[in-house]
Amino acid sequence: MRELGIGLIGTGFMGRAHALAFNNARAVFELPVTLKLSALADADTERARRCATAWGFAQAHGDWQQLIDDPKVDLVAITTPNHLHYPMAMAALAAGKAVYCEKPLAVSLEQADAMRRAASAAGVVTRVGYNYQHNPMIGLARQIIERGELGQIISFQGEFSEDFMADPTSPWSWRCEVGHAGGALADLGSHLLAMARFLLGPVQSVCADTHTVHTRRPATTGSKEQREIAVDDQVHALLRFANGARGTVSSSWLKHGYKNHLSFEISGTQGTLAFDQERLNELRLFRAGQDGFQRVLAGPALPGYAAFSPAAGHQLGYNELKTLEVHELIMAVAGQGAGGTDFEAAWEVERLATAIRLAALEQRWVTL
Amino acid sequence: MRELGIGLIGTGFMGRAHALAFNNARAVFELPVTLKLSALADADTERARRCATAWGFAQAHGDWQQLIDDPKVDLVAITTPNHLHYPMAMAALAAGKAVYCEKPLAVSLEQADAMRRAASAAGVVTRVGYNYQHNPMIGLARQIIERGELGQIISFQGEFSEDFMADPTSPWSWRCEVGHAGGALADLGSHLLAMARFLLGPVQSVCADTHTVHTRRPATTGSKEQREIAVDDQVHALLRFANGARGTVSSSWLKHGYKNHLSFEISGTQGTLAFDQERLNELRLFRAGQDGFQRVLAGPALPGYAAFSPAAGHQLGYNELKTLEVHELIMAVAGQGAGGTDFEAAWEVERLATAIRLAALEQRWVTL
Amino acid sequence: MRELGIGLIGTGFMGRAHALAFNNARAVFELPVTLKLSALADADTERARRCATAWGFAQAHGDWQQLIDDPKVDLVAITTPNHLHYPMAMAALAAGKAVYCEKPLAVSLEQADAMRRAASAAGVVTRVGYNYQHNPMIGLARQIIERGELGQIISFQGEFSEDFMADPTSPWSWRCEVGHAGGALADLGSHLLAMARFLLGPVQSVCADTHTVHTRRPATTGSKEQREIAVDDQVHALLRFANGARGTVSSSWLKHGYKNHLSFEISGTQGTLAFDQERLNELRLFRAGQDGFQRVLAGPALPGYAAFSPAAGHQLGYNELKTLEVHELIMAVAGQGAGGTDFEAAWEVERLATAIRLAALEQRWVTL
Amino acid sequence: MRELGIGLIGTGFMGRAHALAFNNARAVFELPVTLKLSALADADTERARRCATAWGFAQAHGDWQQLIDDPKVDLVAITTPNHLHYPMAMAALAAGKAVYCEKPLAVSLEQADAMRRAASAAGVVTRVGYNYQHNPMIGLARQIIERGELGQIISFQGEFSEDFMADPTSPWSWRCEVGHAGGALADLGSHLLAMARFLLGPVQSVCADTHTVHTRRPATTGSKEQREIAVDDQVHALLRFANGARGTVSSSWLKHGYKNHLSFEISGTQGTLAFDQERLNELRLFRAGQDGFQRVLAGPALPGYAAFSPAAGHQLGYNELKTLEVHELIMAVAGQGAGGTDFEAAWEVERLATAIRLAALEQRWVTL
Repeated sequence: MRELGIGLIGTGFMGRAHALAFNNARAVFELPVTLKLSALADADTERARRCATAWGFAQAHGDWQQLIDDPKVDLVAITTPNHLHYPMAMAALAAGKAVYCEKPLAVSLEQADAMRRAASAAGVVTRVGYNYQHNPMIGLARQIIERGELGQIISFQGEFSEDFMADPTSPWSWRCEVGHAGGALADLGSHLLAMARFLLGPVQSVCADTHTVHTRRPATTGSKEQREIAVDDQVHALLRFANGARGTVSSSWLKHGYKNHLSFEISGTQGTLAFDQERLNELRLFRAGQDGFQRVLAGPALPGYAAFSPAAGHQLGYNELKTLEVHELIMAVAGQGAGGTDFEAAWEVERLATAIRLAALEQRWVTL
Repeated sequence: MRELGIGLIGTGFMGRAHALAFNNARAVFELPVTLKLSALADADTERARRCATAWGFAQAHGDWQQLIDDPKVDLVAITTPNHLHYPMAMAALAAGKAVYCEKPLAVSLEQADAMRRAASAAGVVTRVGYNYQHNPMIGLARQIIERGELGQIISFQGEFSEDFMADPTSPWSWRCEVGHAGGALADLGSHLLAMARFLLGPVQSVCADTHTVHTRRPATTGSKEQREIAVDDQVHALLRFANGARGTVSSSWLKHGYKNHLSFEISGTQGTLAFDQERLNELRLFRAGQDGFQRVLAGPALPGYAAFSPAAGHQLGYNELKTLEVHELIMAVAGQGAGGTDFEAAWEVERLATAIRLAALEQRWVTL
Repeated sequence: MRELGIGLIGTGFMGRAHALAFNNARAVFELPVTLKLSALADADTERARRCATAWGFAQAHGDWQQLIDDPKVDLVAITTPNHLHYPMAMAALAAGKAVYCEKPLAVSLEQADAMRRAASAAGVVTRVGYNYQHNPMIGLARQIIERGELGQIISFQGEFSEDFMADPTSPWSWRCEVGHAGGALADLGSHLLAMARFLLGPVQSVCADTHTVHTRRPATTGSKEQREIAVDDQVHALLRFANGARGTVSSSWLKHGYKNHLSFEISGTQGTLAFDQERLNELRLFRAGQDGFQRVLAGPALPGYAAFSPAAGHQLGYNELKTLEVHELIMAVAGQGAGGTDFEAAWEVERLATAIRLAALEQRWVTL
Repeated sequence: MRELGIGLIGTGFMGRAHALAFNNARAVFELPVTLKLSALADADTERARRCATAWGFAQAHGDWQQLIDDPKVDLVAITTPNHLHYPMAMAALAAGKAVYCEKPLAVSLEQADAMRRAASAAGVVTRVGYNYQHNPMIGLARQIIERGELGQIISFQGEFSEDFMADPTSPWSWRCEVGHAGGALADLGSHLLAMARFLLGPVQSVCADTHTVHTRRPATTGSKEQREIAVDDQVHALLRFANGARGTVSSSWLKHGYKNHLSFEISGTQGTLAFDQERLNELRLFRAGQDGFQRVLAGPALPGYAAFSPAAGHQLGYNELKTLEVHELIMAVAGQGAGGTDFEAAWEVERLATAIRLAALEQRWVTL
């Protein structure tokens, strides 16, 4: 069986999540390739070495370019801060390697555009980490829509809210910088936009309102130095989809009480479905003629779920969505699948977010 | 004690709801006036007589003008089809009577404007039937906001969806006519707009999208004759409130699975609260620092609730909200209260709905 | 049409609830008799007079025997403290009047037995106020069971918990006296036992455990005088039904967080249904083959609901359940219905509660 | 650092779950030992080899005794059918190895007793797979109880129901055999009993009712051959805890609509908490004085959760509970922890289940 060498850049929380996911994909699925954890890179060489041992990587690099150049590496996974996605992915593409990049694709639409063009020119598999889409319940939602069980889709109402920035004394971080793809829309909202597109297809026009509630934050926790904040704390938008559906999206990182509230309701002429990431193993579903909404629990009839548990109700966790994403990535690299968000699709998400920002700035509808 | 004579016009479902409410207000509250059910009017004289007996009214009229002219009638309650609100209310105001009119105030903004001016000139008490606002849980929500428990309010996300028009073979009715204040926005959305204003105050500007999904419906059930439909099946809008909050509202009468889904979430810098009319005795509340959302059940600590039950958890029903509305109306007529939506406030709701329609028509932000 | 004269004894919360219910039954239903509110009795003559005026009763009595003797009174409604149910009901039966008595039927099984015998001998209609059974959703549950939609019923798990005695400084009251039918089992649990019998039929044998957690309480609020408490704070029991089903019941008035948690789950070989009085307009229903539990909302397809609202989702309240009970009572008196709990059935509930107490006392299974 | 060699017996679903858990524990936690996946055994040698490669074990055995004898194996994990737990665990204990055995400990109380004695004599670490206890939310529940936040505990109401045997044509399997620890009580209920003991401590006496609803099942799917079934389909019991609390437990594998409904409510003199495994990342909590139940979401303030995710709301899955169990096991073997259920505690669970069976058989209270 063909070997596939994985090179992972970054050892933070997301780096570890990737490492776990590659390991678990190997144990859980019958893969069409032999997965090798070939190399791990971190600017801190010592840390790279320690993590490589703990996570099962054969080699450690202090310089990410070395990892990309390593002939044992066939696929480069990028989990570094957002502004590094562009140079790393471009280098990997230049080397003809498959690329698996965390979201957002880049910190500007120009970068994203260059990256999708480079990917297309390189002819390699690319994927971006929109892992929420790999939830079997989301797969089920898409099937329900595609099979026409909801009839013609007429509305999408989505929200992704958390409260991790709700405290005005929460300090400035790179997430507060425009140049690092900061703000609620880029950080959270982009997941929701990707989800909307995944389920309903392209958006044609948008109107929006962005809002910075806390315009100053301490430079660091407890510091008296205040920094000006220019990114949005919350955003609300109207969407018109190419398929004729209309809807709203909202995103906030100030909304008290929510921790991971990526949620939506989709209605059609034959039914309605609803989802909330805070209960990721459930779908609320109403088909015309039913007595009331059903609470559908994830179970082994769904392929992704069955990989982890033979019985319904045993629930998948966030990290397993990552494993499912990695599985689809590997299938694509092996030429056996097309699931997941490639650079082209991720650029579309960035384009949509950019249109929303423009609509808010100029207080008008913007057509994509 | 002063007597207050009630004259009720209309004997449909809403007429009966008023009759029940006046009867129950008398039994449940210690009123500062002696309530007399003086007269009931319906164009069908026989029906007027029969209902008067069943509901306890002293007299029946076949002509509503007679009821208005009746010197025993101090307050005129109007529960007729929407297009009759204007002539009846104007006649009652001309006669110097207090007026209690079902929503919507009128079928055009011009009528509504004339009515609020006439009310102001007459100097009498007027009220419009936005009964959802009289729910003790809504009163609690307003108190929480006014006491600053949520901090500065930053967002409102509201929806009023039902599915009673979801079936495309549901026939045309007056609700499908622009000239009768038809459409999801006027029929359902106006309740939500009134609620938003009740809780957060005036709206400054709006952008919106209206959508007629089923552009033809049978003239009557099962008929082959099709009628063109011009009113909206669903509407989505962005709002900017005068207090700085931003938000979205959605309304649909096509959304499968929902029966009375007048719902909203309001977030501020210190907390979030959420409500759904389908569970009208509950509020979900999160205050900064709590572990999670609380489900607050209605109980006798809330004045309106205590009138009906001495124990928490015994739940009020829709009809009791009407009794609470009537109570506030009578208190106002007796000069002892100012609660409820008068013609001025109801005109503001109509003005807001009109701005939303304009924004949708011209696809631009509209400032009020 | 025949007149039916109502005589009501008691002017407390439950007296007012009856008065409202008789008034509303008249307005909401087409009754086969002409309902007259003939007389109201209260030991406090002045109060009797005041309430009679407010609630629409023609006459007031300071002596309940006078009310029973009043030839205008055909039906005697009893809402006094529990220990008075027996003498009043026996007197009314002796006078050949129909009797509507609040629960519990009596304060001892001996009394209850005498009452059901007297009722049988008198040949009049009797009813006891187990109003939760008149909820249209409970009617629906019974229909679902009777139509066999759940298959053969195999289990009942019920609980009625509140927390109004949870605070150990909540003072002694008559509810803490055995001789007044005090304790969680008599006060709350009897509703649950009546419900279990209403839905599944008779119980054959029981085993149980009762528990007094707070054995002393202040004589009055804030008092230093402590009174010994002998009644149960909580009870748990196993039931075997005559139809073969098995189950558990629990009742507590110490269970923090619950206000009116009369709840149950019933499962059969074809499905499961669940109910909670704290959301009295909903039923959770699972039929074999479904994807998940449905949340069924009350709507006008259910006869009782339709009397109050023409649209689903508008929710009934606790007081409307009382109106529905009164409606069934009047239909029975008019010879047109058999719904509701008569003295015979109420005695069966007392017998079951007594068996539970015996089983707990002797720590053994007791067969009825 | 000391090496710890793991030997795993069994390659079914649970075997793979163990393999994943050992791998992930290594990646997620800083362990005080160097974990080695030394050997994997399965009677099917070829399968053992294939799985060893996929899961990262150094060696494969076709004979489990060889694995136990392997000097590289320090800890023996047993995931074989129930009746093999006894011989394998006894052999491992005889070899002085630590043992990690799936639940139930054994197929008879005699075996279980022999095993706990052997474990005690061997002086090694033993653990049994009651993985639900390792959920951080259950850890939080226990902390809340131990810190006295609920006051004195007065009641436990628990249920573990699923519906995987609800269809009467579901065929016979080893789960239907008494001699293989079959039946709802052994298969599901034992998890609930273990949980009750974990949270409230020992049980003093029980009364119970067991029930076989479907007394015959096809020998295999679709077969006409019917087998007699003697094990319980459902069980209901009353419990008295040593700490004075009272309660009920129910377990069924016939309860339509439930997939993994291991649920309980615990109330005390100061509050109530509730949990349902079907929403394993949530706890419902009410503290005296609160307005209503809080829905508490798992988050990184809980140590076990933080190992997997730095942000609240990201939810753990069933498999991660296994990783947490393995982590506690390894800490215990390393002498740095005492968490988890050892053979002594698992024997107590079996003893309790046996008492419940006896109480049901003899229809009387049984004291432990």
